[in-house]
Amino acid sequence: MSNYKLVKNAVGRLVPDSINGEKATPFMGVGKFQPKGKKYSRQISTNADFPDDGNKQVEDLKTALLKAGLKDGMTISTHHHFRNGDLVANQIFKIASELGIKNLRWFPSASFPCHSPILEYLEDGTIHHIEGSMNGPLGDYASKGKMKGMAVLRSHGGRYQAVQDGEVHIDIAVIAAPTADSFGNCTGDRGESACGLLGFALADSEFADKVIVVTDNLVPFPCYPWQIQGQNVDFVVKVDQVGDPSKIVSGTTQITKSPDRLLIAEMTTQFVVDAGLVKDGFSFQAGAGGTALSFGIYLKDYMVENQIKASFVRGGSNKYLVEMLEEGLTNYILDGQTFDLEGVRSMRENPNHINTNPFVSYNYHSKGNVASMVDMVILGATEVDLNFNGNVVTHSDGRLLHGIGGWQNCLFSKCTILPIPLFRNRIPVIVDEVTTLCGPGELIDVIVTERGIAINPLRKDLIEATKDSKLPIKTIQELQAEAEEICGGKPAKPKLGEKVIAAIKWVDGTVIDCVREVL
Amino acid sequence: MSNYKLVKNAVGRLVPDSINGEKATPFMGVGKFQPKGKKYSRQISTNADFPDDGNKQVEDLKTALLKAGLKDGMTISTHHHFRNGDLVANQIFKIASELGIKNLRWFPSASFPCHSPILEYLEDGTIHHIEGSMNGPLGDYASKGKMKGMAVLRSHGGRYQAVQDGEVHIDIAVIAAPTADSFGNCTGDRGESACGLLGFALADSEFADKVIVVTDNLVPFPCYPWQIQGQNVDFVVKVDQVGDPSKIVSGTTQITKSPDRLLIAEMTTQFVVDAGLVKDGFSFQAGAGGTALSFGIYLKDYMVENQIKASFVRGGSNKYLVEMLEEGLTNYILDGQTFDLEGVRSMRENPNHINTNPFVSYNYHSKGNVASMVDMVILGATEVDLNFNGNVVTHSDGRLLHGIGGWQNCLFSKCTILPIPLFRNRIPVIVDEVTTLCGPGELIDVIVTERGIAINPLRKDLIEATKDSKLPIKTIQELQAEAEEICGGKPAKPKLGEKVIAAIKWVDGTVIDCVREVL
Repeated sequence: MSNYKLVKNAVGRLVPDSINGEKATPFMGVGKFQPKGKKYSRQISTNADFPDDGNKQVEDLKTALLKAGLKDGMTISTHHHFRNGDLVANQIFKIASELGIKNLRWFPSASFPCHSPILEYLEDGTIHHIEGSMNGPLGDYASKGKMKGMAVLRSHGGRYQAVQDGEVHIDIAVIAAPTADSFGNCTGDRGESACGLLGFALADSEFADKVIVVTDNLVPFPCYPWQIQGQNVDFVVKVDQVGDPSKIVSGTTQITKSPDRLLIAEMTTQFVVDAGLVKDGFSFQAGAGGTALSFGIYLKDYMVENQIKASFVRGGSNKYLVEMLEEGLTNYILDGQTFDLEGVRSMRENPNHINTNPFVSYNYHSKGNVASMVDMVILGATEVDLNFNGNVVTHSDGRLLHGIGGWQNCLFSKCTILPIPLFRNRIPVIVDEVTTLCGPGELIDVIVTERGIAINPLRKDLIEATKDSKLPIKTIQELQAEAEEICGGKPAKPKLGEKVIAAIKWVDGTVIDCVREVL
Repeated sequence: MSNYKLVKNAVGRLVPDSINGEKATPFMGVGKFQPKGKKYSRQISTNADFPDDGNKQVEDLKTALLKAGLKDGMTISTHHHFRNGDLVANQIFKIASELGIKNLRWFPSASFPCHSPILEYLEDGTIHHIEGSMNGPLGDYASKGKMKGMAVLRSHGGRYQAVQDGEVHIDIAVIAAPTADSFGNCTGDRGESACGLLGFALADSEFADKVIVVTDNLVPFPCYPWQIQGQNVDFVVKVDQVGDPSKIVSGTTQITKSPDRLLIAEMTTQFVVDAGLVKDGFSFQAGAGGTALSFGIYLKDYMVENQIKASFVRGGSNKYLVEMLEEGLTNYILDGQTFDLEGVRSMRENPNHINTNPFVSYNYHSKGNVASMVDMVILGATEVDLNFNGNVVTHSDGRLLHGIGGWQNCLFSKCTILPIPLFRNRIPVIVDEVTTLCGPGELIDVIVTERGIAINPLRKDLIEATKDSKLPIKTIQELQAEAEEICGGKPAKPKLGEKVIAAIKWVDGTVIDCVREVL
């Protein structure tokens, strides 16, 4: 028996009207939902309850969790600054399981294959459900309909928005920090486990009832520069190792070697050049995918040749962006997440490598953010449909295997480009209708494939600007037809059950789509 | 007719039970008041209501104020980063007065003699009352009983606490910024009007309904490093000049030339040395007064001679602290306010000159702050009484002429020392009972005068540590007797009326004392 009704939202998707017993608002269109009420705020605390000498260290993580009042049904948050190298989240739920705690909501900023031990705690009832991107095994588990509650996927900005707006109340936040002092000031940019930044934990530090900092590098006060402020921290725990920073280079953050994808990256670069978007003082963001990274390299070559300097580039930073900064091709990197150790080094050493967070970059319930000021953004997708709607979370077989990351937030850039292969494993990527609608087509401007480029008809300006381009500009229908001819038809329909296993939130907290159980 | 009753608080002072019609809580003792409820939070905003390109610039200050909804009875905040060189606050109320707006509450972080034009707007009803420290003419005006409402004085930390806790709801914050971008990111550390930092405006940027940034140096996005984040800003205004930074060196921030005060500074230094407080890794804060500055110089000499390095020093920074940092005598300056242009330069150039704010340093309704971690703090006072209670706001004649600054917040240091002259203008500074009780004696540890040092009997550890010192350690009663003998008796009682003209808040928002009209 489901405890929700399905209702049709503004993009025609049937979405649940409630999620795990709480009322949900269907997506109303981009910029249409007007938030009401005040931001969430936590209980007023007093320094009288904290040590005068500022030392908040407690014996171990279990002690900290118990002092923080860990109990059944709580929401526990963690963060993915170590990506696939996180060593803290699993420990939390091991402790909780041993204590017999049940029905926790795990609220990670993202989960990775390294979190597969969590499956045990989903099975034994320690965790009721996960709210956060699930890359790999946990998504697969949810896709089988096995998770007790409904998953909720949000973008990085949507996660900040949800916490800020009180949609998700975090009882205990646990922040894994490569360097910290005993007051709780902490940072990701130095220490043996340096992973770059801790921005995904900012909302948690500001809004969670209790905040625990776990570090393997305790330094004397003040740990400066600090990325998270000790004034928001309750307890500090020293452990042997918080994470393996070599694993931040994982999955989607390696450059492509595929000739097709290199071609796509080259065509994408030529497109932004032909469209007149690459000029002094411009800005861009390229996501973590291999094609996007290659785009950055081609773009850099063009900038060097033509002596063009960017105002800023947005990271996910990596060694290629760092080179651009160090070679004077951009004034700043505005970074949200370091994707390799060169990014970590640059963030630590270069004052123009700016440490940002989802409040600065992505929060839609704010007074503006950086995302909408970026001239062009290069993103990936698992599917795009004829209305330019994009999917980033499910495969064509319906399985939920990827997170949203900053993808939805980035769609607000002035020109959103998806360089994607026309097909993967002989399955066309351009489809009649995306399996899961993560981003509305009105925000997706250009699709670049190895066989041609489609410009969203809404972007008459881009069509006009590139009318003399030598690039193979086609309609999206033409691209779809080519893919289907090569692959022998449309992708098979996924075999889905009735049960909604995950809700996909839009940047404003409304439900843009949902994911069903795969049979 | 007064609309309040007077009630006795935990230090025996009669204080109003309501302030300008709102219920007030009498001081209950240090650390005794337990705050209830949640922090204030403002209305959730949405980026849909802000320009995609991030440009929030409007024509002029009047336009910004009107767009922000300026109307009768609102609370308007400004900040004293320019101290006596502020050029913005007066403009705001000139505009309001010309628009016929009435009964505003002005909520500056402090006011100075440069704000004497505000007298006109108090007279014509534009401003109902001032909440904030009043240095000079505005305090004198209030002392005469002429202000319509009751003034409220808070420490820097108390101001943050009041805003955070929702005790003061700011309708419109106006932040004068030496450098800003059109998105609202701004900073005080550079630009022609560079004044150092903008930390006093942090609470306002986070909690005010509408935030206006006024700058005379508009730079391309991103204005980085930023001290105030554009994500909290509604409007940006460009003007010719926001302030005169040469005037941040004003009043209390010049080194003393008085032989007596130099002696006091020297004795203070000898005291902290004899008490064993000056050792590797120690920390100190010396306030803005001339004696405190001289203490810093003597202390530095001692540190150099004995090869002692501080962990951090707290500013108000000035050229002497900057020298210490640059000569390697301290790892960090944790700065709350730059007191001269060398401080401004260092903050801009030296990454170990840390830009803090009242949230980091002083907010008592937090999870700890820096103030209680400082080993020793050197502060001034207008009066001290036999119970070691201190007064910083009124003179013995009862006139309210000074602000609290960070004074109350600093009392939480591990050793609070007041180096003060035994008398001023032949009026003894040690009195039976302070005219206004700003800080309870239990937090004031040592009084250093030119004729002897008194240690608070509560600090048995300090008495023990200095028992072999050659310094003239006496009781506070002995010091008082000497002063009275020299001056020919106790100070004359001030001639006060019944009317309460100002409430003095403690760091937790309770009322520790009040100031009466001077007849």
